[in-house]
Amino acid sequence: MKALGPIPAGYDAIDGVLAIGGRPVTHWVEEAGATPLFVYSADHVRRRVAELRAALPQRVALHYAVKANPYPPLLALMAGLVDGFDIASGGELEIVRGAGLPLAKVSFAGPGKRDAELEAAILAGVTLNLESEGEAARAIAIGERLGKTPRLAIRVNPSFDLKGSGMKMGGGAKPFGIDAERVPALVRTVIESGAEWRGFHIFAGSQALGAEAIAETQAQALALAAQLAQESGAPLPHCNLGGGLGIPYFPGDTPVDLPLVGQLLAQQMESLPEVLRETEFCIELGRYLVGEAGVYLARIVDRKISHGEVFLVTDGGLHHQLAASGNFGTVVRRNYPSAIATRFGAGVEEEASIVGCLCTPLDKLADKGGFPRADVGDLIAVFCAGAYGASASPAMFLGQGPAAEMLVQA
Amino acid sequence: MKALGPIPAGYDAIDGVLAIGGRPVTHWVEEAGATPLFVYSADHVRRRVAELRAALPQRVALHYAVKANPYPPLLALMAGLVDGFDIASGGELEIVRGAGLPLAKVSFAGPGKRDAELEAAILAGVTLNLESEGEAARAIAIGERLGKTPRLAIRVNPSFDLKGSGMKMGGGAKPFGIDAERVPALVRTVIESGAEWRGFHIFAGSQALGAEAIAETQAQALALAAQLAQESGAPLPHCNLGGGLGIPYFPGDTPVDLPLVGQLLAQQMESLPEVLRETEFCIELGRYLVGEAGVYLARIVDRKISHGEVFLVTDGGLHHQLAASGNFGTVVRRNYPSAIATRFGAGVEEEASIVGCLCTPLDKLADKGGFPRADVGDLIAVFCAGAYGASASPAMFLGQGPAAEMLVQA
Repeated sequence: MKALGPIPAGYDAIDGVLAIGGRPVTHWVEEAGATPLFVYSADHVRRRVAELRAALPQRVALHYAVKANPYPPLLALMAGLVDGFDIASGGELEIVRGAGLPLAKVSFAGPGKRDAELEAAILAGVTLNLESEGEAARAIAIGERLGKTPRLAIRVNPSFDLKGSGMKMGGGAKPFGIDAERVPALVRTVIESGAEWRGFHIFAGSQALGAEAIAETQAQALALAAQLAQESGAPLPHCNLGGGLGIPYFPGDTPVDLPLVGQLLAQQMESLPEVLRETEFCIELGRYLVGEAGVYLARIVDRKISHGEVFLVTDGGLHHQLAASGNFGTVVRRNYPSAIATRFGAGVEEEASIVGCLCTPLDKLADKGGFPRADVGDLIAVFCAGAYGASASPAMFLGQGPAAEMLVQA
Repeated sequence: MKALGPIPAGYDAIDGVLAIGGRPVTHWVEEAGATPLFVYSADHVRRRVAELRAALPQRVALHYAVKANPYPPLLALMAGLVDGFDIASGGELEIVRGAGLPLAKVSFAGPGKRDAELEAAILAGVTLNLESEGEAARAIAIGERLGKTPRLAIRVNPSFDLKGSGMKMGGGAKPFGIDAERVPALVRTVIESGAEWRGFHIFAGSQALGAEAIAETQAQALALAAQLAQESGAPLPHCNLGGGLGIPYFPGDTPVDLPLVGQLLAQQMESLPEVLRETEFCIELGRYLVGEAGVYLARIVDRKISHGEVFLVTDGGLHHQLAASGNFGTVVRRNYPSAIATRFGAGVEEEASIVGCLCTPLDKLADKGGFPRADVGDLIAVFCAGAYGASASPAMFLGQGPAAEMLVQA
């Protein structure tokens, strides 16, 4: 039997059925009229934001990375909770525009911005996190052509990475941002162009669980920001310290010690060097805000025995849950947290694999886990499905199409 | 410098630009009006089918696995070239229906068919490859309810796998098909139900390059079919021998020796056991028919140097080319064949990585390959993009959306 990842806090059973927002998931499936279904809990998101506000120093603003989950009702919820948004494409710009978010609070990072995307962002008053000198030149030229002052920040490629992070965004040659030693010259170019100088974006990695590693990276980012601001000879209006806070997905993972992260960041904020005294700071979180607030539900279509092993075949699969299937950025497949949603809290009765409906051996949601006995018609749940699920999976693979999504207000 | 996969035969340059169907790709990009763009060559597909027809014994029919590439104009082309189609979902049923394909020549395999999918397939006269006793019972009941005789075959989970295959579909506990020893009883159940008995579907693996391994698997499938037909006590109308023929993706890969595969299969056909003398046979190919006929084109948006390394940042990426990025079913990332399409055939001038526009380090199309010097505006090409590209990638990731597709008639 292989271990399953830890089920996030806050999920209980009502009459033996997994509950979200105070109702059993069978209720939400009935309301949606379909499986597979992503259910996101607004309350879970609100609690997470409240925990962050309580832990983080007041001076540090909170931004949401839209890429984690661009579901419009979720964005609308976020609008009342966070201080800004980060987008990664012209497509996401249209999504946040459509959700009615204030575009002046939006910044745009991404290594391959096309001219059309730069133009749309400049017209919308979105801050561009410049990824190269070439992109800076294009943005400045487009601003001049449009007669609109571009709002420009510089994404710095830091020479450090975030220790223990699932996704390293710094520390060596990277397609993201501009190597630190070339930044001061570009700051001067940006300011001399007449653009609105917005500051730095320093993102060293994501999905880390160690508070000390996160704090160390934040300290390094602050030191780097101070050094670069000094060398640039210009005050630093804003600094995005990146994100990095991860969620537990796999057996043995434990949650980030958020109070400790907040306490260590507060110490940093109290001893800022002179050059950063007026700077506004933010951290940019995606997965940490919404990941644990989402559950993916699929229905068991078949229960099969092959060579003595039990397979619970569902109507879902990797076309909605690529990362949970172990096929996205992981070398060794490990089990996400999952459960039989309609027998939630029941004891382990058998070893079974939960698979998707796709005709490929890659389509596995839980490999040889311990579950109560489940049968055709039961619902399975994959947790930690609120981030990089629906939008980060190949929905059209084998002609399946996207899953339904639902934001539960409670 | 890391090696690149081998560029498939049949791709030449016109005035230094990669040509497809007798025209430079710049022509097709202009006609499509957009990058990224998948270009599929009808001539390449026709040649591949002709090679197969010449090599394979006439008795063995040729089926196309729609999942490899469901682009409707490509399906329409296929309709005039192959003898049948295999689908993997109700969604693909609608795609082949929309493309005007003859539904009586379609079979449907997939471990998690819902009742609605079974119903649609039975009404359309599509052959169902049954994946379990439970699915058989549901299909029979639905047929009775509809007053329509279902056409039923059984997918067998063979106890052997295809040696050297990239994707093993047999050999041990699997969610696909029914363990061989339980098949004869189910054959009798199907026949006694009054359904139209269609035979076996035996798929041991895919993406193999060794002719002997493919031939050995075909021989094993024939022996298994004969044994199961004998034990079932019923003639076998049809047998799908699976596919398995792969294409070279990675450095060191060499093409399948197709004449040898055909010759060995012909020997098998000449010495069939009595019980299979009247059986119709087919092989079902997807990737082998269309994979090398497709090229993915993206435009270089930025040329960056970071810590001395060159990054060619394109407007494409893993949202269209998940497998090429190394994030789909592979443990060790290796380079697909790729090239600077607008400097095709020019010598190696530098080491560069081709990356996508997504804000994630996973988005790499070529890692430290040797290329002629390329700049902003140049087109890059990823080869072997005709199968499991557009439809098997997370197109909505980071709000990017799908690539354009085009079937070039020449």
